Amino acid sequence: MDRTIAVPIKRVPGSAGDDLVVVEEPLEIRVGDRPLSVTMRTPGDDFDLAVGFLFTEGLLRDPAEIESIRHWGSPNVVRVAVSVPLDLSKVQRHFYATSSCGICGKASIDAIRVQAPPIESAARIDSDVLARLPDALRTTQPAFDATGAIHAAAAFTAGGMLVRAREDVGRHNAVDKVIGSLFLEGRRAEVLVVSGRAGFEIVQKAVVAAIPIVVAVGAPSSLAVDLARESGQTLAGFVREGRFNVYSGGERIG
Amino acid sequence: MDRTIAVPIKRVPGSAGDDLVVVEEPLEIRVGDRPLSVTMRTPGDDFDLAVGFLFTEGLLRDPAEIESIRHWGSPNVVRVAVSVPLDLSKVQRHFYATSSCGICGKASIDAIRVQAPPIESAARIDSDVLARLPDALRTTQPAFDATGAIHAAAAFTAGGMLVRAREDVGRHNAVDKVIGSLFLEGRRAEVLVVSGRAGFEIVQKAVVAAIPIVVAVGAPSSLAVDLARESGQTLAGFVREGRFNVYSGGERIG
Repeated sequence: MDRTIAVPIKRVPGSAGDDLVVVEEPLEIRVGDRPLSVTMRTPGDDFDLAVGFLFTEGLLRDPAEIESIRHWGSPNVVRVAVSVPLDLSKVQRHFYATSSCGICGKASIDAIRVQAPPIESAARIDSDVLARLPDALRTTQPAFDATGAIHAAAAFTAGGMLVRAREDVGRHNAVDKVIGSLFLEGRRAEVLVVSGRAGFEIVQKAVVAAIPIVVAVGAPSSLAVDLARESGQTLAGFVREGRFNVYSGGERIG
Repeated sequence: MDRTIAVPIKRVPGSAGDDLVVVEEPLEIRVGDRPLSVTMRTPGDDFDLAVGFLFTEGLLRDPAEIESIRHWGSPNVVRVAVSVPLDLSKVQRHFYATSSCGICGKASIDAIRVQAPPIESAARIDSDVLARLPDALRTTQPAFDATGAIHAAAAFTAGGMLVRAREDVGRHNAVDKVIGSLFLEGRRAEVLVVSGRAGFEIVQKAVVAAIPIVVAVGAPSSLAVDLARESGQTLAGFVREGRFNVYSGGERIG
């Protein structure tokens, strides 16, 4: 499954030639016979993506709930069969308001939140180790080197060892692929590193996956900082050239 | 409506202090009494965002169809009242598959596409003008200067004059705000400039708004290139330091 494709272009100034662009195609995620979501993703690791999405949306809780995962009539459709009834209305609640006012007034944040308990973790990370994680992530990104246009996410141990890395044209998809891959093995990441910014949805996925430390190369949003603090999660951002900012949970950084 | 907010942080190496982060909050878009979509956005220009979303999703066609736009019980809810029946199932088709297979096989791209005619436009842009547009966009971005974390989009004339600029934590929202703002005035942009990458959804919004020239500071995706070519749209990317790549519609660049 190629993650990049050559397209003919004209360079200005310059002449005609080829450029590698990142592949983007829709993926439909089905639970049994029900289509649940369509996401624009880079093909590859589709099963990780589908499972990570279902887990971080609060639908799947245990890999044992999965009976089978397969492509279904198309390379752009993944069907997940489950052994337990899932409350699929949860996803509609987050992506789609239904009949009542979903995010009016004070209830607004609660309505878009996937419920998850506060993070309990004794993990600690050395500040020198943390500062080097973006470089370590970068070395896992062959498609970025080719296109300059793909996001990456990776799980590391608190000691700085790479556990899993995934690329995708979509930031959320890269995170779902990493989390889904570990979920299928019954594992949990200690540190999640993302190549870009950390918005609310990125931090929320990490909170649902009970990941104690999130490191973003870019900046967090206001709501991401709020959620990390409420959840007892360590959130570092702007990790560049040996420096970084700690927005939440500084007690895990030594 | 502040687009940035100060949060207490710890700098490593360094000491405690404040950092400005971009504000991110959910916005519910309602059509009449029906909640249609929730998007994570930076507050401000909410009416532009709501209208731009409804237009680029193929629901609204003319500003005269709008009876009123107002916040509704919360600064995070916008209600658009319309004088014509809208086919709201269109949005569900794009964001959410319903009962049948939405994107199986060859039908996949068609299923996520908003139908729009090919772009007919005699607009031409000078390559020197095009190469300077990212710098011109940058000067409109006060919140980026403060946070390093906010996307921008702007409409320019083919002669390089700034028409409208908007910022948002979400790339798609910045584009919807620009397009919605012009739609409300019955105007169409000649050139759309985006501060980041150009994925399928960005190009699709520009196609629906019949914008003939799209300029991305970053890279396009494979599907964005395909759609621009099919739609007769000029797409330039990687516009940096006086150089750029032309992925589609080079005949409009002189």
